[in-house]
Amino acid sequence: AVGLLAPSLAKAAADDPLPSWNDSRSKTAILDFVGRVTKEGGSDFVPVEDRIAVFDNDGTLWSEQPAYFQFFFALARVKQLYPEHPEWENQQPFAAAISGDMKTLAESGEKGMATIVMATHAGMTTAEFAQLVVDWATTAKHPRFNRLFIDLVYQPMLDTLALLRQNGFKTYIVSGGGIEFMRPWTEKVYGIPPEQVVGSSIVTKFEMKDGKPVLMRLPKIDFIDDGPGKPVGINQFIGRRPIFAAGNSDGDLEMLQWVTGGQGPRFGMLVHHTDEKREWAYDRQSKVGRLDKALDAAVAAKWTVVDMKWDWAKIYPFGG
Amino acid sequence: AVGLLAPSLAKAAADDPLPSWNDSRSKTAILDFVGRVTKEGGSDFVPVEDRIAVFDNDGTLWSEQPAYFQFFFALARVKQLYPEHPEWENQQPFAAAISGDMKTLAESGEKGMATIVMATHAGMTTAEFAQLVVDWATTAKHPRFNRLFIDLVYQPMLDTLALLRQNGFKTYIVSGGGIEFMRPWTEKVYGIPPEQVVGSSIVTKFEMKDGKPVLMRLPKIDFIDDGPGKPVGINQFIGRRPIFAAGNSDGDLEMLQWVTGGQGPRFGMLVHHTDEKREWAYDRQSKVGRLDKALDAAVAAKWTVVDMKWDWAKIYPFGG
Ligand SMILES: [Ca+2]
Ligand SMILES: [Ca+2]
Repeated sequence: AVGLLAPSLAKAAADDPLPSWNDSRSKTAILDFVGRVTKEGGSDFVPVEDRIAVFDNDGTLWSEQPAYFQFFFALARVKQLYPEHPEWENQQPFAAAISGDMKTLAESGEKGMATIVMATHAGMTTAEFAQLVVDWATTAKHPRFNRLFIDLVYQPMLDTLALLRQNGFKTYIVSGGGIEFMRPWTEKVYGIPPEQVVGSSIVTKFEMKDGKPVLMRLPKIDFIDDGPGKPVGINQFIGRRPIFAAGNSDGDLEMLQWVTGGQGPRFGMLVHHTDEKREWAYDRQSKVGRLDKALDAAVAAKWTVVDMKWDWAKIYPFGG
Repeated sequence: AVGLLAPSLAKAAADDPLPSWNDSRSKTAILDFVGRVTKEGGSDFVPVEDRIAVFDNDGTLWSEQPAYFQFFFALARVKQLYPEHPEWENQQPFAAAISGDMKTLAESGEKGMATIVMATHAGMTTAEFAQLVVDWATTAKHPRFNRLFIDLVYQPMLDTLALLRQNGFKTYIVSGGGIEFMRPWTEKVYGIPPEQVVGSSIVTKFEMKDGKPVLMRLPKIDFIDDGPGKPVGINQFIGRRPIFAAGNSDGDLEMLQWVTGGQGPRFGMLVHHTDEKREWAYDRQSKVGRLDKALDAAVAAKWTVVDMKWDWAKIYPFGG
């Protein structure tokens, strides 16, 4: 009997469109939704052009601890630029960034962070910045796993992206992170092309430089794609109301409200970080990726709250 | 011999991917470019993902005389709203708009125009605004042709859009016009979906209204997608550098410089309005769609300047 069973089990595994998900309620909910919106003639059928899915990035598609990965990039840039800026030795928050004094850095708060971002992300062309990001993404490693940061993406979410695309969905990133920090690698890592990445931005300016047209990055905030900014960014960039949204923090609350508040079938997902062993466990008290109000809202709104520990058979593609 | 020739001529016409273009240099240039970038193994081959084409809208894809069509929409809105705003009777530029005093209206300049746009385009949700645009687009007629404004699109440009898409190009609009004024009808009219429309915008704000999430349109400029703003908008929305750009005025100069200034094969097109009889003739002195600096730049940059009168066998789909 075992010999007879094995091949059909193997086949079931091969046919499983979400192999990195355990057979729990979350997986069933995703499969059920995709089945309903793609069933021609069904009451929940959605035409292909309206199958738009949006995903937060930090903490939803890849990890975000002990700090947003873009922050590691900014710190690396501070160290890179330090030789040209000896004055930083006595200037906060740069001194803390150079010496790795994370406590002082954290105390510098949002203002300190903005100072570092502007000093490290502006003052070059868009092409130069993209190259800096590529150089970092292909070499910089996460301190805990000693793996490239771009290796710390969630295999179950890659499965979900693939399943949605196989079913005619257009998949977008809608992230509070920098749009130009993501675009150089999202196609390779997530299969999401640059034109389907929405994010925060600084002002750019068209200039002729040595007779060549360039776009210069200026140290000035243009758009913050977080919280109530996410539905605004979705409307601005996509111009359609998505029917599927996934996030992991209070910064995704308005996006989930906007997406699931429309007519017809809608899917809202919150990734809840519950796996201290394989990843990290945090929610209501966390400084990074706080999940509090949105967790409460999920109950009333019937969003699917993914429990990483129980729902995910695998966390990272490398098997972690 | 005639009998033998006729079928092959008929076949040639049917096979012609640009049937509304006369067999002139402009047509040849487009066909040659498309042939080169799609020839696998050729030195000018461009992978499908980089085949991005951007088109200005007013004066490039549809007419723009005697005034931008969005201006007609704004005037219709003023008349619609007048009953709720009796004070407009004694207030410029509204009084001029109501009485049809185009001279006074023109004299109110950009400031007057902005006043009218803010009064007529803001103060409602994005969904309400989209409905107003649809209502206008499906009923309002152009005074000269007594046709819907959306009928006044250029058949040769529809041919060009179709040819590019058949060859793997993603086609975008990049217009100084309002992004939300275009999106409700561009898919039907041009085959360009909302997410491939870049335009000027006013600020929108996420709100809960009677327990439902909405995006409110506020009377404040967000982004002007014109002149040096066009390469900025392209970078922000698309995140790739297009290889094909078409425009018709000095507002497209920086977009053409940006697109054709990149490496590899590039195509720049300027539509020159030379046909007073079938459309309009205007360039260096025109208030609407002035083509002056860009026309000079076209020579040095080897952009294709389309002469509407000579290059286009047909102007509008309805045969005009
Ligand atoms: Ca997040
Ligand atoms: Ca134009």
